[in-house]
Amino acid sequence: MSLRRVVLDEREIPQVWYNLQADLPEPLPNMLHPVKRNPLVPDDLAAIFPPGLIEQELSRERYIDIPGEVMDIYRSWRPTPLIRALKLEQLLETPAHIYYKYEGTSPAGSHKLNSSAPQAYYNKQAGIKHLTTETGAGQWGSALSIACQFFGLECTVFMVRVSYDQKPYRRTFIETYGGRAVSSPSQETEAGRKVLAEQPDTPGTMGIAISEAVEVAAQNPDTNYALGSVLNHVLLHQSVVGQEAKNQLEKVGCFPDVIIGCHGGGSNFGGLIAPFIRDKIEGKAVRIIAVEPTSCPTLTKGKYDYDYCDTFGLTPLIKMYSMGHTHTPPGIHAGGLRYHGASPIISSLLHHGLIEAQAYPQTDVFGSAISFARTEGILPAPESAHAIHAAVEEALKARETGEEKTILFGLSGHGHFDMSAYEDYLAGKLG
Amino acid sequence: MSLRRVVLDEREIPQVWYNLQADLPEPLPNMLHPVKRNPLVPDDLAAIFPPGLIEQELSRERYIDIPGEVMDIYRSWRPTPLIRALKLEQLLETPAHIYYKYEGTSPAGSHKLNSSAPQAYYNKQAGIKHLTTETGAGQWGSALSIACQFFGLECTVFMVRVSYDQKPYRRTFIETYGGRAVSSPSQETEAGRKVLAEQPDTPGTMGIAISEAVEVAAQNPDTNYALGSVLNHVLLHQSVVGQEAKNQLEKVGCFPDVIIGCHGGGSNFGGLIAPFIRDKIEGKAVRIIAVEPTSCPTLTKGKYDYDYCDTFGLTPLIKMYSMGHTHTPPGIHAGGLRYHGASPIISSLLHHGLIEAQAYPQTDVFGSAISFARTEGILPAPESAHAIHAAVEEALKARETGEEKTILFGLSGHGHFDMSAYEDYLAGKLG
Repeated sequence: MSLRRVVLDEREIPQVWYNLQADLPEPLPNMLHPVKRNPLVPDDLAAIFPPGLIEQELSRERYIDIPGEVMDIYRSWRPTPLIRALKLEQLLETPAHIYYKYEGTSPAGSHKLNSSAPQAYYNKQAGIKHLTTETGAGQWGSALSIACQFFGLECTVFMVRVSYDQKPYRRTFIETYGGRAVSSPSQETEAGRKVLAEQPDTPGTMGIAISEAVEVAAQNPDTNYALGSVLNHVLLHQSVVGQEAKNQLEKVGCFPDVIIGCHGGGSNFGGLIAPFIRDKIEGKAVRIIAVEPTSCPTLTKGKYDYDYCDTFGLTPLIKMYSMGHTHTPPGIHAGGLRYHGASPIISSLLHHGLIEAQAYPQTDVFGSAISFARTEGILPAPESAHAIHAAVEEALKARETGEEKTILFGLSGHGHFDMSAYEDYLAGKLG
Repeated sequence: MSLRRVVLDEREIPQVWYNLQADLPEPLPNMLHPVKRNPLVPDDLAAIFPPGLIEQELSRERYIDIPGEVMDIYRSWRPTPLIRALKLEQLLETPAHIYYKYEGTSPAGSHKLNSSAPQAYYNKQAGIKHLTTETGAGQWGSALSIACQFFGLECTVFMVRVSYDQKPYRRTFIETYGGRAVSSPSQETEAGRKVLAEQPDTPGTMGIAISEAVEVAAQNPDTNYALGSVLNHVLLHQSVVGQEAKNQLEKVGCFPDVIIGCHGGGSNFGGLIAPFIRDKIEGKAVRIIAVEPTSCPTLTKGKYDYDYCDTFGLTPLIKMYSMGHTHTPPGIHAGGLRYHGASPIISSLLHHGLIEAQAYPQTDVFGSAISFARTEGILPAPESAHAIHAAVEEALKARETGEEKTILFGLSGHGHFDMSAYEDYLAGKLG
């Protein structure tokens, strides 16, 4: 009998975060000030981030201790299961062994709570009362609302309009935990009013929503901003995912030949691959693939250069793959992957050839999502389904070559709040 | 450090079902033929159930082996976690230790897949091609759709109209797995057409939906009917829940002083308490509490007598607590608890004083649901929230008496498809 699920005891939750910055071939290029364009000093970030997170953002220490109060939160759902996709393998008639690390068992339904919990913690420590943020698909906004509730902070979520409209129940979910969801662009900020005046019908973008959230945080001393992806400290927090997955694979005597994750800003992907890059540098033959939608092909078609994280140029300039900070991707259903930029860490890894990137159209992705649901049972988030689709493609290649390779992919969340996407797909209405 | 979650290895999934019929003070009264009113023989059930399930329905063997192919399905999410509600305890300032067995990690989002999987298996074995069923909240319909997909069966779900309207995404969920959801009463059956002619605005009931599903099954030789609760074989399958919970509590050196489960037809409650009744009979001081809504007070106000399972009297008569088979409860949000009758096993246990029953109004229940979500993180199904509320009440009593008692409750599912209920509650619109 093969093990279907590899479960860990809560004593096996990683006690440290794994910092990918320690493994980069060269240090990350400095962030630049949004106006002056000189290299940023930590103090420049202090208007919107607490000291604990700024320190992590810039740290090159490989291991960073996870505070006890954050461990306490992690224990309510971690460790998450690693599952062998036996039924999917049967369907595909592949000799490949497919494993997926499932983060959808978190109360927020995705990996996002891994970072929102420590972000709320460090802000609380710094005396902050209120956090603002943006959300695309709603996963991050939900996770931050829950984390703020745990630490007694107020929470305002600027939700990209297309997702706000597609997912009415995401708003209710956020509000159930005490957060406030605002359709973005909104009338609550200068940035929002400006967009609405010029393009009243805009579907919104992550870039605009970030501008709104940053604006509110910068103007109020007791308010900070929280980002759900892209930044180094976010990837750091997500490294619990990869560390657990690596431990779980070791328990069944495996090391992956291919590692696959979906990529929007990079938090899920970066967390999954965190402890594997050093293996690759040290000579292990492992392919590491970031998967994105063809409608927002940041890594496969973007340019590696300095750009803003937001639409209005309020954030620092960071060196990253980007479609340009004013880019408006079409309103696809994987809202979490509609971001113009990419994590600087992931960008650097791609630039140095340590990882590769692939893009797929959403109709193909949903086809694989349905196959996955009907074999493995779990209904995947549209974002996560990008990783499923790439894993299916790899498994089909293995069928042709006869290779018994081990594929690990990240299933970053469930799709329970994405039913309108499935409805559209089943009705043949997906573009 | 107290353990927050007690996890089991998949080798610790129970290999047998535990049959509560073996522990009843007296054998269950015979079912009676719906028309002739004479005691039923197994052949009478053969028009709608396969031999494997009929045998289980009537068996008094204490342990019944779980087939390998069903174990195979169970392994994709079982064992489920037992979680110590540390944060809820802190909120309530109670000396009680509260544990909950969480079944929401199943692909269907509730305990229901524990029974739909074996039901699909035994029907497949008997050469059946198509299963019909009813669903209230949608949990059972979702679970049967998934199980039918796993075993290659067609699936038609008659969904009580009020739930069908309140939960549009439940329908999409069912369809994603290949099932077909039909609003009940429907034009597809004689029973449905009759109700629609007389009461075009009816919210529907579980009783009517059962009539429709049974009618289709009885008229088509390759079609059988599957029931998600009430019947003995359903409670039998759900006994994996209680067996695991008991094992998990033993691992932390506990035996519960109070066991609490929500009760609609009895499948969740019966599964949770299955291995504990014998302890009680043998002298253990444990209170076992079934919780229902005041708007459908079957156990607290119903009559213990013979009644039909459905509205039109197509099913056998069984001796159970019932509000009367033509009773239409108001369209409350805990659709899974809107059933006029009750499991004959649970009814017998209540009649013999081995369990007790409590009823609560839905506004109180949602208040506790929100407190639970905001402390423990998990968003509960409205049905499960009834158990939460009763556990909160017990924990508050313990605060007054200072007793350090151990409370175990069943958290049968998540509320991701019940957001309209939370929306109404947060807006103060809940009746």
